[in-house]
Amino acid sequence: MLDVCLLGTGGMMPLPKRALTSLMVRYNGSSLLIDCGEGTQVAIREKGWSVNPIDTICFTHYHGDHISGLPGLLLSMGNAERTSPLTMIGPKGLKKVVNALRIIAPGLPFEINFVEISDNICNMEFNGLMLEMFRVDHSVPCYGYSIVIPRTGKFSVENAKKLGLPINLWNPLQKGNSVEFEGKVYTPEMVLGPVRKGIKLTYCTDTRPADIIALKAYGSDLFICEGMYGEKDKLAKAKENKHMTFYEAAELAKRACVKKMWLTHYSPSLIKPEQYINDVRAIFPDAECGRDRKSVTLGFED
Amino acid sequence: MLDVCLLGTGGMMPLPKRALTSLMVRYNGSSLLIDCGEGTQVAIREKGWSVNPIDTICFTHYHGDHISGLPGLLLSMGNAERTSPLTMIGPKGLKKVVNALRIIAPGLPFEINFVEISDNICNMEFNGLMLEMFRVDHSVPCYGYSIVIPRTGKFSVENAKKLGLPINLWNPLQKGNSVEFEGKVYTPEMVLGPVRKGIKLTYCTDTRPADIIALKAYGSDLFICEGMYGEKDKLAKAKENKHMTFYEAAELAKRACVKKMWLTHYSPSLIKPEQYINDVRAIFPDAECGRDRKSVTLGFED
Repeated sequence: MLDVCLLGTGGMMPLPKRALTSLMVRYNGSSLLIDCGEGTQVAIREKGWSVNPIDTICFTHYHGDHISGLPGLLLSMGNAERTSPLTMIGPKGLKKVVNALRIIAPGLPFEINFVEISDNICNMEFNGLMLEMFRVDHSVPCYGYSIVIPRTGKFSVENAKKLGLPINLWNPLQKGNSVEFEGKVYTPEMVLGPVRKGIKLTYCTDTRPADIIALKAYGSDLFICEGMYGEKDKLAKAKENKHMTFYEAAELAKRACVKKMWLTHYSPSLIKPEQYINDVRAIFPDAECGRDRKSVTLGFED
Repeated sequence: MLDVCLLGTGGMMPLPKRALTSLMVRYNGSSLLIDCGEGTQVAIREKGWSVNPIDTICFTHYHGDHISGLPGLLLSMGNAERTSPLTMIGPKGLKKVVNALRIIAPGLPFEINFVEISDNICNMEFNGLMLEMFRVDHSVPCYGYSIVIPRTGKFSVENAKKLGLPINLWNPLQKGNSVEFEGKVYTPEMVLGPVRKGIKLTYCTDTRPADIIALKAYGSDLFICEGMYGEKDKLAKAKENKHMTFYEAAELAKRACVKKMWLTHYSPSLIKPEQYINDVRAIFPDAECGRDRKSVTLGFED
């Protein structure tokens, strides 16, 4: 189960009742944050979640609306007497940017590990989840993120029994580990059915539409995608500023065959995103307007 | 007339419904901000004021809760296409801190002028107001600020007539300028009564009590003072962290003979500041708990 909360939905600047776009997910007792604009720590508190279990902070890029809340968040983590290390992931330059901002958050009681990405596509695995990063098309290096929780095949009690394996060895096999019994090695494939669909969440902002997005978001249970503009006549502006209209996001969702799409990262000039949703759904029916603190728990199918 | 708004009342970290302590004043068509923690720009919008007329930003010191909102504010000013220069005032190190934070707000369409203070007391005059800065007692160099709008003496129509001055020369004299008429110089003193009480506002956080505060706040119409702790048993903690209790702030207000005091900069652990107000008023009766966006317009007496 992956708890997902879209902490805010604003682009460019925070507004009363519209925090800057940021995503927080909870899995396996720890939390991961993507982007941290001004006000993110308050948005977390408004959701009723805690900053303490955040082990990983990912950045799409370093425009102010995606990172300006970091010093305050770090200070709050320090004030809460965090000692466990924090991992930060983002495009090249991460350490330089974070260390510059830390001029106002100098003495933290925990370590920060930096993972800087420069390849166009990059994968990491930790805490039982896979993080897939892919470079998108913005005015500065910017990455989209997919979070994947893989699921092994169904455990076959019949096969385990046939092999004569004692029950205490079933669990490690089920978790994907090999075991030894009476001098013979048993691998998971011997007792597991074909790999099943896991959970997949894709988060993508700020960017123009790009093939890589449709490819990496493919089959996501939830695709959270920027939609800077709802007004159709703002396509030229979207192109100029390297952002997307709602309809471009919907086309991507359709191509990527995702289950559901939430729009986010609205222009401050866009007061009521909902007024455009019918036109969005004409392209991709399972689209919803993100709103601050919109949440869902994604589980395995069945 | 000086419009005053206490934008937030929080210390250390922003909370839902409690922004970080910051003061905004409007006078003569321009605005001045003291401190700019994370969320200040949203607090300004919540008040219904604008970031555009802010010409001056003063900093008490550079702890994160007093400056973390600066990059976002600068970006928003830039997005609003500001071109007029912005003046920043603060303790030594200002330029270094601001330029470090500007790693995420690099290309601004306006100039920033820095005024770094290192003297214990320092005065400036601009835009018709006097700014008095005084060093207080915190863990890092930290300054309190008094904003004074001076008021000239009452214009004596009788004297002006006696001197035979034509009406078109009355206004410059009233504004404190000398004039020449029929080969003779007339100075303001010749037509103005004794200098009258102006408007005085003092803002002071973060600090232990200090004589200089009582001295510089003396006679203020409004004294906005930090009160980190309401609980009487937190005096030792206040001393250790170089902050004040509500009662220490009240003693200062009493010594400074101010008209009114607002408390601010509450510890995140202090949920209901109002519960201590009666004990505060036993020391200084005209005390009030600051709350977010508490506002007043200070005018000349009469």
